[in-house]
Amino acid sequence: MTWLDLAEHTAFGLDNLPYGVFSRPGDTRRRAGVAVGDQVLDLSAATEDTALAPLFGAGVLNPFLAAGRPVWREVRARVREWLTGKQHADRIAPHLVARDEVTTHLPIEVADYVDFYSSEQHALNAGRILLGAEGELAPNWKRLPVGYHGRAGTVVVSGTPVTRPSGQRKPRGAAEPSFGPSRLLDIEAEVGFVVGTPSTVGTPVPVDDFAEHVFGMCLVNDWSARDIQGWESQPLGPFLGKSFATSMSAWIVPLEALEHARVAPPVQDPEPFDYLRGREPWGIDLALEIRLNGHLVSSPPFATQYWTGAQQLAHLTVNGASLRTGDLYASGTVTGPEREQRGSLLELSWGGREPFDLPGGETRKFLLDGDEVVISGTAPGPDGTRVGFGDVRGRVLPAI
Amino acid sequence: MTWLDLAEHTAFGLDNLPYGVFSRPGDTRRRAGVAVGDQVLDLSAATEDTALAPLFGAGVLNPFLAAGRPVWREVRARVREWLTGKQHADRIAPHLVARDEVTTHLPIEVADYVDFYSSEQHALNAGRILLGAEGELAPNWKRLPVGYHGRAGTVVVSGTPVTRPSGQRKPRGAAEPSFGPSRLLDIEAEVGFVVGTPSTVGTPVPVDDFAEHVFGMCLVNDWSARDIQGWESQPLGPFLGKSFATSMSAWIVPLEALEHARVAPPVQDPEPFDYLRGREPWGIDLALEIRLNGHLVSSPPFATQYWTGAQQLAHLTVNGASLRTGDLYASGTVTGPEREQRGSLLELSWGGREPFDLPGGETRKFLLDGDEVVISGTAPGPDGTRVGFGDVRGRVLPAI
Repeated sequence: MTWLDLAEHTAFGLDNLPYGVFSRPGDTRRRAGVAVGDQVLDLSAATEDTALAPLFGAGVLNPFLAAGRPVWREVRARVREWLTGKQHADRIAPHLVARDEVTTHLPIEVADYVDFYSSEQHALNAGRILLGAEGELAPNWKRLPVGYHGRAGTVVVSGTPVTRPSGQRKPRGAAEPSFGPSRLLDIEAEVGFVVGTPSTVGTPVPVDDFAEHVFGMCLVNDWSARDIQGWESQPLGPFLGKSFATSMSAWIVPLEALEHARVAPPVQDPEPFDYLRGREPWGIDLALEIRLNGHLVSSPPFATQYWTGAQQLAHLTVNGASLRTGDLYASGTVTGPEREQRGSLLELSWGGREPFDLPGGETRKFLLDGDEVVISGTAPGPDGTRVGFGDVRGRVLPAI
Repeated sequence: MTWLDLAEHTAFGLDNLPYGVFSRPGDTRRRAGVAVGDQVLDLSAATEDTALAPLFGAGVLNPFLAAGRPVWREVRARVREWLTGKQHADRIAPHLVARDEVTTHLPIEVADYVDFYSSEQHALNAGRILLGAEGELAPNWKRLPVGYHGRAGTVVVSGTPVTRPSGQRKPRGAAEPSFGPSRLLDIEAEVGFVVGTPSTVGTPVPVDDFAEHVFGMCLVNDWSARDIQGWESQPLGPFLGKSFATSMSAWIVPLEALEHARVAPPVQDPEPFDYLRGREPWGIDLALEIRLNGHLVSSPPFATQYWTGAQQLAHLTVNGASLRTGDLYASGTVTGPEREQRGSLLELSWGGREPFDLPGGETRKFLLDGDEVVISGTAPGPDGTRVGFGDVRGRVLPAI
């Protein structure tokens, strides 16, 4: 099917073809690329003297994303053609680089970043951990996809180290808050949606227009400082407990690669309002894995998310708020019904009350300095293949 | 003092010189400008063949803002020289345009937008309106400047109409939420701070470095849909109740114009943490006025704000979050101790329970379609003069 030397069961085959931004060794120029097998196709170089050149010359994917769905389809078709047609091999082969030799960069200029809260199990767990057995879903939770804006300027690419934040926190039982490094540093395994086509302010985006606006998906680690968050968040929500860093994958999987991953979301009850009801179901079957220092600690299933990416987009814009190219929104922590499916250390350690085991005799509640977290994921592809998402990794550095 | 024909008591004299972006009649090009008297100095044209040209050629002020405090000082000194030295008149006069003939545009590309909540009276009023007589300041309020991220992409320039948002809301007493146009559309008179010099992620900005990073100030109307906000905001804070629109002045007053407006903020008790304590007080005496359809309804005094802009900046970055050129942060609703000093209709009408009067027999609780709100303000300048802020105005359009 391809003249490339692709491993048989690669999750980065011709049915995937995620986009990213990279630089070659010894060259700081940022280039658009497509990951294929264990290589990267330098799209900036491959399109250099063609009509597609302006889309891939910016050092970020935004011009390509802004061009809209017909162009995304056309480019995808061309790239597949280049990688399948033997007649292209001579021209294209020099534009392939080994993936482990490149440096990846933040693939998009992030416009606005929104974080949702759309896993029912996560919301239940968080409520119970914080409020005890009475903790239950807030009355609005099954009516609207609860969300908030995060800090676009501190979204970083996978591989960027994360410095333990300092701030005010007030431990349970303390009379007064104190200032210092966060002691409850956590992760949140989430799925990100990247907007390409903008929308007009004042005009909500219909839920069925999801695929016209959203270019693709990635993984997100919504690093969280639970103690800082707990002290600051009444009444206006999370702020510094989140804004120190948010990591995204280097590779964005186009929606077109996820046709075989589409599933119905869980039954929604009560029935959502009209603007949240679409003709097509946009649940996505995406199997996440969280590794802490190389050890698999959890396998959150994204298919269990209550609110879909399409519903989140419709909700985000229903008040007339506009979308911009490069908007990123994340699903909220992905947590399934089982213990080994929890998407945060808050839940895995049940608020620190039930430290979980790591191989070698260690236990963990929250992150320690030096810990490295890797969130990875694959979705079903055609014919029993898997479509791999670029993982999102980060190591914790000590507080300054 | 100047060869210009300036009105004697102009609030846009040589001690002000705010920056903005405008276009001339019949010409779509966006130019950097300085407002002086009833004119605008076309800075893009005046610097065209000079070393300053790259700072003012972008259609937004960001390159100038990114250049840092020494450059802001130098440009200010040069502009003052051009407007005072008779020898410059022939060259500069052709670059002056009547202010009422130009179209102003969003003066900055907004990077991240943060909203604070730093008026004690406003927070008390809001608490009492929502929770009754027991409503009091949350335990964290006097420990840290409470804030949250808003939507940068829907910050619009003064003059932009605002469409009444639709969304889910659940009126008091209703069993279920319903969907429709907001019935409780409101304003919030706030003061904005515009960041020029960026900072490095992981490195908090010291409170005493405020004037190195913040270029200047403006006015902000944080339009709010109280019913949408009320239903959505537990537990993650305001979202769609805010993100449909936020308006900012067309003119940004440089900090250097506000030397005579510096005051000590109110006494802070308990004593703030070290990172919030600076050597210099950054309270600002700025007298705001809110007009509804031309009628003065309130005169909020900014000097009463509990947390200063410098403390807000230090808090925003204390967890290592970085600043970018074009970051905008707003003070929170400015409300003083008196009834005629309240910065929102929520407070002016006490949650709709005490409609307030407008001349001509009308009363108001919240905004009606067609209402126009203008927030203006002046600060003390040298020798009894006033420094005028560009007002921020908007008219409410009916829900689509």
